Amino acid sequence: MTEREGARALVHPEPGAIRLENVLDALSDPVRLSIVRDLARSDAELACSHFALPVTKSTSTHHFRVLRESGVVRQAYQGTTKLNALRRAELEELFPGLLDSVLTAAAAEAARLLAAPETA
Amino acid sequence: MTEREGARALVHPEPGAIRLENVLDALSDPVRLSIVRDLARSDAELACSHFALPVTKSTSTHHFRVLRESGVVRQAYQGTTKLNALRRAELEELFPGLLDSVLTAAAAEAARLLAAPETA
Repeated sequence: MTEREGARALVHPEPGAIRLENVLDALSDPVRLSIVRDLARSDAELACSHFALPVTKSTSTHHFRVLRESGVVRQAYQGTTKLNALRRAELEELFPGLLDSVLTAAAAEAARLLAAPETA
Repeated sequence: MTEREGARALVHPEPGAIRLENVLDALSDPVRLSIVRDLARSDAELACSHFALPVTKSTSTHHFRVLRESGVVRQAYQGTTKLNALRRAELEELFPGLLDSVLTAAAAEAARLLAAPETA
């Protein structure tokens, strides 16, 4: 494998290697949770650059890597762009209902904080 | 407040101050998840010393504090013993279905790893 290919290899855990604690850890960060919510709302794969994140590019790259290495998202190159998709079906098979309940909870919390920001 | 009282004060977030990311972070550690699973199976409050945890006492204290400060468990002193209870109803009201789906996922993962430990 050339160095160029190595740098572009994107490692993903097989479904059997996905661990609940890693998935929960990946979802426990507000920036990563916002990425997951956007992906859940989108039918298409989304480029990293699609997301308007309040962090530096290197921090953003870190967050996407945590999501990929935990098994939450699948990343693939299209040219020089990394496209992201939720591994929804695989997560649902491993942990039925978990992703939906986290997405519902995130939406409820966002609505709650918007309604009463002074108690946030 | 005397120093003694201060040392024994156990701070808990009000329901409105419980944050999803903190709850997910609290649940993203295998030791803390095992504590939560034991509490979910128990009808009674459980002393910290009830749990056979593979960590030192100070690490154990840290884990219980993370669970308490995130809003996952409520702790109360009974004499010199700290008793722990899941804040199940409050979490259910804030994040319907979340705790149950995490508990189901944790049970599924434990069964999966027991059945095929070589792929763990």
